[in-house]
Amino acid sequence: MYGRYTQELGVYAKEEAARLRDGGGPRRGASVRGRAAQILEYEKDPCAKCQLCASRCQKFLISRVGEDWIFLILLGLLMALVSWVMDYAIAFCQEAQKWMYSGLDSNMLLQYIAWVTYPVVLITFSAGFTQILSPQAVGSGIPEMKTILRGVVLKEYLTFKTFVAKVIGLTCALGSGMPLGKEGPFVHVASLCAALLSKFMVALFGGTYMNEMRNTEMLSAACAVGVGCCFAAPIGGVLFSIEVTSTFFAVRNYWRGFFAATFSAFIFRVLAVLNQEEETITALFKTRFRLDFPFDLQELPAFAVLGIACGFGGALFVYLNRLIVECMRKQKTINKFLLRKRLVYPAMVTLLISTLTFPPGFGQFMAGQLTQHESLVALFDNRTWCRHGVAEEFEYIGHSHGWKHPHVNVFITLILFIIMKFWMSAVATTMPVPCGAFMPVFLIGAAFGRLVGEVMATMFPDGIHADGRVYPIVPGGYAVVGAAALSGAVTHTVSTAVIVFELTGQISHILPVMIAVILANAVAQSLQPSLYDSIIRIKKLPYLPELGMGHHEKYNIRVEDIMVREVRYITLSSSYRGLQEVVQTSQLKTLALVESQESMILLGSIERIQLQSLLSIQLGRQRRLDHLSQLAQDNGTQHHHHLSSLASDSTPSSPCIDPHARITNAAAAPAAAAAATTTTTTTTISEWEEQQLDDPVDFKNCKIDPAPFQLVERTSLHKTHTIFSLLGLDHAYVTSIGRLVGVVSLKELRKAIEGSVTVTGVKVRPPLASFRDSGNSTNVSDITDLHKLWVRHRGHSLPREPTPPEIEQGDMTSRTHNFHT
Amino acid sequence: MYGRYTQELGVYAKEEAARLRDGGGPRRGASVRGRAAQILEYEKDPCAKCQLCASRCQKFLISRVGEDWIFLILLGLLMALVSWVMDYAIAFCQEAQKWMYSGLDSNMLLQYIAWVTYPVVLITFSAGFTQILSPQAVGSGIPEMKTILRGVVLKEYLTFKTFVAKVIGLTCALGSGMPLGKEGPFVHVASLCAALLSKFMVALFGGTYMNEMRNTEMLSAACAVGVGCCFAAPIGGVLFSIEVTSTFFAVRNYWRGFFAATFSAFIFRVLAVLNQEEETITALFKTRFRLDFPFDLQELPAFAVLGIACGFGGALFVYLNRLIVECMRKQKTINKFLLRKRLVYPAMVTLLISTLTFPPGFGQFMAGQLTQHESLVALFDNRTWCRHGVAEEFEYIGHSHGWKHPHVNVFITLILFIIMKFWMSAVATTMPVPCGAFMPVFLIGAAFGRLVGEVMATMFPDGIHADGRVYPIVPGGYAVVGAAALSGAVTHTVSTAVIVFELTGQISHILPVMIAVILANAVAQSLQPSLYDSIIRIKKLPYLPELGMGHHEKYNIRVEDIMVREVRYITLSSSYRGLQEVVQTSQLKTLALVESQESMILLGSIERIQLQSLLSIQLGRQRRLDHLSQLAQDNGTQHHHHLSSLASDSTPSSPCIDPHARITNAAAAPAAAAAATTTTTTTTISEWEEQQLDDPVDFKNCKIDPAPFQLVERTSLHKTHTIFSLLGLDHAYVTSIGRLVGVVSLKELRKAIEGSVTVTGVKVRPPLASFRDSGNSTNVSDITDLHKLWVRHRGHSLPREPTPPEIEQGDMTSRTHNFHT
Repeated sequence: MYGRYTQELGVYAKEEAARLRDGGGPRRGASVRGRAAQILEYEKDPCAKCQLCASRCQKFLISRVGEDWIFLILLGLLMALVSWVMDYAIAFCQEAQKWMYSGLDSNMLLQYIAWVTYPVVLITFSAGFTQILSPQAVGSGIPEMKTILRGVVLKEYLTFKTFVAKVIGLTCALGSGMPLGKEGPFVHVASLCAALLSKFMVALFGGTYMNEMRNTEMLSAACAVGVGCCFAAPIGGVLFSIEVTSTFFAVRNYWRGFFAATFSAFIFRVLAVLNQEEETITALFKTRFRLDFPFDLQELPAFAVLGIACGFGGALFVYLNRLIVECMRKQKTINKFLLRKRLVYPAMVTLLISTLTFPPGFGQFMAGQLTQHESLVALFDNRTWCRHGVAEEFEYIGHSHGWKHPHVNVFITLILFIIMKFWMSAVATTMPVPCGAFMPVFLIGAAFGRLVGEVMATMFPDGIHADGRVYPIVPGGYAVVGAAALSGAVTHTVSTAVIVFELTGQISHILPVMIAVILANAVAQSLQPSLYDSIIRIKKLPYLPELGMGHHEKYNIRVEDIMVREVRYITLSSSYRGLQEVVQTSQLKTLALVESQESMILLGSIERIQLQSLLSIQLGRQRRLDHLSQLAQDNGTQHHHHLSSLASDSTPSSPCIDPHARITNAAAAPAAAAAATTTTTTTTISEWEEQQLDDPVDFKNCKIDPAPFQLVERTSLHKTHTIFSLLGLDHAYVTSIGRLVGVVSLKELRKAIEGSVTVTGVKVRPPLASFRDSGNSTNVSDITDLHKLWVRHRGHSLPREPTPPEIEQGDMTSRTHNFHT
Repeated sequence: MYGRYTQELGVYAKEEAARLRDGGGPRRGASVRGRAAQILEYEKDPCAKCQLCASRCQKFLISRVGEDWIFLILLGLLMALVSWVMDYAIAFCQEAQKWMYSGLDSNMLLQYIAWVTYPVVLITFSAGFTQILSPQAVGSGIPEMKTILRGVVLKEYLTFKTFVAKVIGLTCALGSGMPLGKEGPFVHVASLCAALLSKFMVALFGGTYMNEMRNTEMLSAACAVGVGCCFAAPIGGVLFSIEVTSTFFAVRNYWRGFFAATFSAFIFRVLAVLNQEEETITALFKTRFRLDFPFDLQELPAFAVLGIACGFGGALFVYLNRLIVECMRKQKTINKFLLRKRLVYPAMVTLLISTLTFPPGFGQFMAGQLTQHESLVALFDNRTWCRHGVAEEFEYIGHSHGWKHPHVNVFITLILFIIMKFWMSAVATTMPVPCGAFMPVFLIGAAFGRLVGEVMATMFPDGIHADGRVYPIVPGGYAVVGAAALSGAVTHTVSTAVIVFELTGQISHILPVMIAVILANAVAQSLQPSLYDSIIRIKKLPYLPELGMGHHEKYNIRVEDIMVREVRYITLSSSYRGLQEVVQTSQLKTLALVESQESMILLGSIERIQLQSLLSIQLGRQRRLDHLSQLAQDNGTQHHHHLSSLASDSTPSSPCIDPHARITNAAAAPAAAAAATTTTTTTTISEWEEQQLDDPVDFKNCKIDPAPFQLVERTSLHKTHTIFSLLGLDHAYVTSIGRLVGVVSLKELRKAIEGSVTVTGVKVRPPLASFRDSGNSTNVSDITDLHKLWVRHRGHSLPREPTPPEIEQGDMTSRTHNFHT
């Protein structure tokens, strides 16, 4: 089962608190604390850190482009090596299982135990290892990368620990022979590689190397590398990673992905050549379909039907996968049990699946002894398995024997294979190990395609073509089409088409593949979200869902319908008390700064952490000490030691540090002695605090963002969505002629899109919204704040025409080229 | 030569004036004039029009997705038909020429005349036809589409006239056998189709169909269709069109392009099957390279060298093309002559090229009698032309005979072919006919690749492979690689790799192709802009150039270095006189509205046209009449007729209408009688006008954009560029804590990027800018306006710490997730 994002957050908060405790403990005094907050801020944000280094190493600016290339080459090389070594290890694991299995063929029971124990041990180890080292390594990683590329910081997802956990966990999981894939995790591994490599490069070349944008550029290149070197499919890799992770793609970053993915795929295949596995660089699953007449025009309806069926199948797979996870969660007892014994679930699932695939048992009816790779090679075979009338002519060479059963028709085998693998894959991908679902789905699609192809070959043994020559039907072509279509339907991508061309090394079936993939996508997209979006929802990752294709009523919702009207703001004349109140009651990461409560003109936004540090400076150790020494001079009775400990302990830094940490902090302090003497000065201290809080805020040390993103009330939901995705915003202020009237954050937007709009503080689309467009643009609600401002300036000096100004914002919406209205 | 954009604008301005003249003539009186401006505004903007219709046809909202599909299917169908018919016509033209040429083989002179006259007539017709019907149809069309998709309205480029001109002109141009391509124009044709089709759909289904965003979505799908159905390469088409036309691509539009391009390519090839040209759907230039061992690992260096050479070649081609155009322009006498006799230049060029390719003449050394299609088929042949030692074994089948000359080596033929075609293509693509350069470049690349391949085959007659079996080198593979690399270098795209796979139907050479294309791109991009960007510069289209890969000093320029500081603004308390002044002196399309001259707080922006209509209302006919009838009541001497004609004639609507129109207007008026009596009231009128101008502005009827895009002074050039390209802005205001301090428009940005920054009003990057980052963020210039505001609010109430606030915007730059700082 997937770990929940909320849990992750809790852990993170604890760590943060612990770090703060170390940094701002009483040993080093309270004045460190403000600094600690600042350092923490730098640590949380790699860019701020780089900014610091930036001033140091200006001289490396020139070599930056060189670094780009070096970075991409290193990344490609590294990933190719990782991919190849992993493949090697996986093949070794699978060979070991086979060897053990065939070595024990004298005793069926021993054979069964060997067959079953081996994967159970591997999967359990994988799950346990991942759980202990880095729970973030569980699962595919594509949903997380999508979220990270969206601009959200999920920091624990890109650490060295996660890298180790993912690579080793994935190798074990795939070595077990379960229906799991390596594609999704590889995207994550490549991103991890890129993140670690860039840290390494920063250390090596100095600071200027990374900034926020470059980071994103490099990560998206890394995603391409991940897919590219996993399948030796550079073009498909780039396209798939774009489709799966991006919303808006910067074309100028295109070459990076292409370059890195090509280099990586090249090295990956060269390694195979050097290792004498291959004679030269060729495709991973090379097919040998005839070039002259790959398919008949009249076969196209069959391909189209295959595509549509794959669309339904893909949607069903996503649904099934989600259903299993949700079932587990809802069943309280199961959930409790599984949370306590985390390794039981994967072990049980593995036991079940490997029992069912046990070759002498049920496995004989579903090609149980073949690995994914072998099955795929067999399915893509260009010979027909089942030739009507000419039964015994066909020789089962290579892996095809796995599909032949002395008593059972090959159709039955295929159907059983498809059905069993379908639910097995859906179940297996919910195990808490690093694993993807692409490859299993690809395999099921290939099997389904093969089934359709064999049926066609049986129905038309001499091909459909009418004139002269006989062109028999190629069932392998159907397998290729089915694989592309089903994996396309599950992931909602069309680039699986390119991936199959690169995987098979043949592009002759381009039209059937494209047709089937597009149809499968059309069907699947209208039924279910993509597998990755489904996981994002399950994991509750902070991601903005796509606007559906068909939801055009969304064009009719406006920002004013979804914005939060009760904005927390600070004015230029706020007191520290107001500041404290706002900081304590508001949850947003940034707060609006307006000119005054009357004008409400938006001047900028200030980060919460800035305000907290303002507060802690105002009530901080230094000023407290000054005050106390002032007092001490007046009274002349207290020791300096006591004063300082007092000052550090009772600092009201509560808004800055999480309460848990504060308590620990207070408990850990060697305040036993001090506590006794505290009572005497407490009253003076609190008086002083009250005094301090009434001071007006000094914005001197405050970083202000002077131009936060602004929308207007009439901006449509569609445009808001576009802007949020384009710019990676997490909130935007809604203004009306300079006046702040509301705020929209990702949360509101997400709710509006998902349709669950009954939340506190969020005004839902008014019932008349759908009729709004039919009215004209000059209605009463358009009397906006410009009028007031204008009247304030000169309203009474207007002798005639006292009607309020009609601001036809409605028309503006469609006219200006900027996105604001 | 390319038509200049400035000329186009002149024509447009005249038309506009003429239209205004019709709309606002004295027959209908001056009050119509304000309305006319509004109507004009609607006509210029299709969206505003749709907005009007939107209210009408709400009921079609639901069927919109259906419409999407219908639209894309229709578009695909239409384009496939156009492409196929055009190919058919072109093939017919070329056959006709061949037939004529071979029919006259008794007389060399007659043969020459026939060979030469035919293309000259076709090209001259094409140039003349295009010139007369629609000069916008000249050239490739990709640069224009890039500009249109960037958000700039080049309206005349998407009309029915242009469509007809482009299709017929292109057919004739290609039928002439000149080295011209159909790809670029096809992108334009497809976009024209889409634009016309959407108009048709609006007429059919009612209004809600199009809006600004959907328009862009559909146009980018159309570009994909254009490439896709031209080469029967759907995937390559989509990718190529994305690379060539987009800066930021919305992944959610991806499927549209894929669907339409696939459908179109499918229909295009089905038509060939139905016409019995092909037996089934296959690739356009099908190759038959061996699948087992397509190339040796040790051939890769040769492929890499080929790629690098193609990179240099590509850059040279772009440079040569631009040089020719610029030469023509600079030579005043040539330029003058050519502008007067527009058809002479294409005729001369055609004469020269066809003379040189005359088969019995020089053409025999450069395969002159082959068409582009035939040459390409021959170059992609999988047999070796030149086998060392085994000279006569090879049979010249098919079109290969064109390359064999009894006395001259095949290498000489190839080299001559490459050199001659190179400059011929560069010259031919400057002719004022609809034509692209992709195909000629592709052909040259294929020839160059073949040359390298043949050299390799001669050097290693038994292949390089060391172990056992002999795998001879495949020169056709080199031809494929060369074609992709050179066309990639010229257009700066990597998707040409995908296009060659789809064109040849084989993907076996994927790694060499990818390596060569990437290397060629790397070389070409560092030397020259892409061909399309080069044309954009030559034509002076309003397009924002890309930030170069290596120009990292751009990160160091900030908005404050390039912004225009003297912003024209209006305040809430402006008088009409101030308004008139601002409108007359400023050139920008929109003007800033600030609260007051002191606070300078930006409230919004108003379009110029809005202000003009405000002015014309204030001094307009109705109010003038009112005033005059008031006067008349006082004096009781004037006829009403005279008054009204006076009112309409002397309306000072100059800011609203171009002076040319106004003069015509005045001349056309039946003012002969009125003119006599004018003098009596002129003084009163001008007095009244002065009075009116002193009135404060009434913003009642004014549409205000309440949230124009804002940047801050420290925004880097890199980020500014990203935001401008992402959002398609044409200007942005620079604010500092709400105060307007400057404005940046596309012009300034373009200049800053291109480096020509010595313009009036544009403050160039200060000499110390490069040292700025090495200093720390707290320098004196950071004392910004917040301080003033803050001081204004409460400065004197601060007893201690009188230091100015340090706003560390520098740090903010890298920290926030929004793009503003």
